Amino acid sequence: MNPVLMEALGLVGAALTTVSFLPQVVKVYRTRSTRDISLGMFSIAWVGMVLWLVYGLLLGSWALILCNGTTLVFAGYIIACKLRYG
Amino acid sequence: MNPVLMEALGLVGAALTTVSFLPQVVKVYRTRSTRDISLGMFSIAWVGMVLWLVYGLLLGSWALILCNGTTLVFAGYIIACKLRYG
Repeated sequence: MNPVLMEALGLVGAALTTVSFLPQVVKVYRTRSTRDISLGMFSIAWVGMVLWLVYGLLLGSWALILCNGTTLVFAGYIIACKLRYG
Repeated sequence: MNPVLMEALGLVGAALTTVSFLPQVVKVYRTRSTRDISLGMFSIAWVGMVLWLVYGLLLGSWALILCNGTTLVFAGYIIACKLRYG
């Protein structure tokens, strides 16, 4: 496969998994309801993203820094709402 | 930083973000309630994971294949429950 196309595949995949948090953030913001959301999921993911972010910083990979920096903020907001609204 | 330690950081980060889906799967399985879960989040993430999986297959990266294969199943279960229980 064309290497440029292949890298594009990886980048679009990373962009989608990053952006995917946004609809959940909007839903939580609108409804203020978090009962069905697992605190475990977002907490474990948050710690994983911190490690990925540090890894990206050490590698100097802007794709990793940007994606994980963004999802950290999104997941952090969902965790904060879960802790606040229960 | 020690390169082995650095790669371990990335791998533990990947393992945590992969495993993070499990508490949400268990919660949905137990409560059968998915009202607060965003279908948009898991659908967009699912498509992103498919692209990542294809990227991993093309690269021959077992870490990518294993992580994205696993999260695809977890996210797929959550999507199926969301569609079923509403």
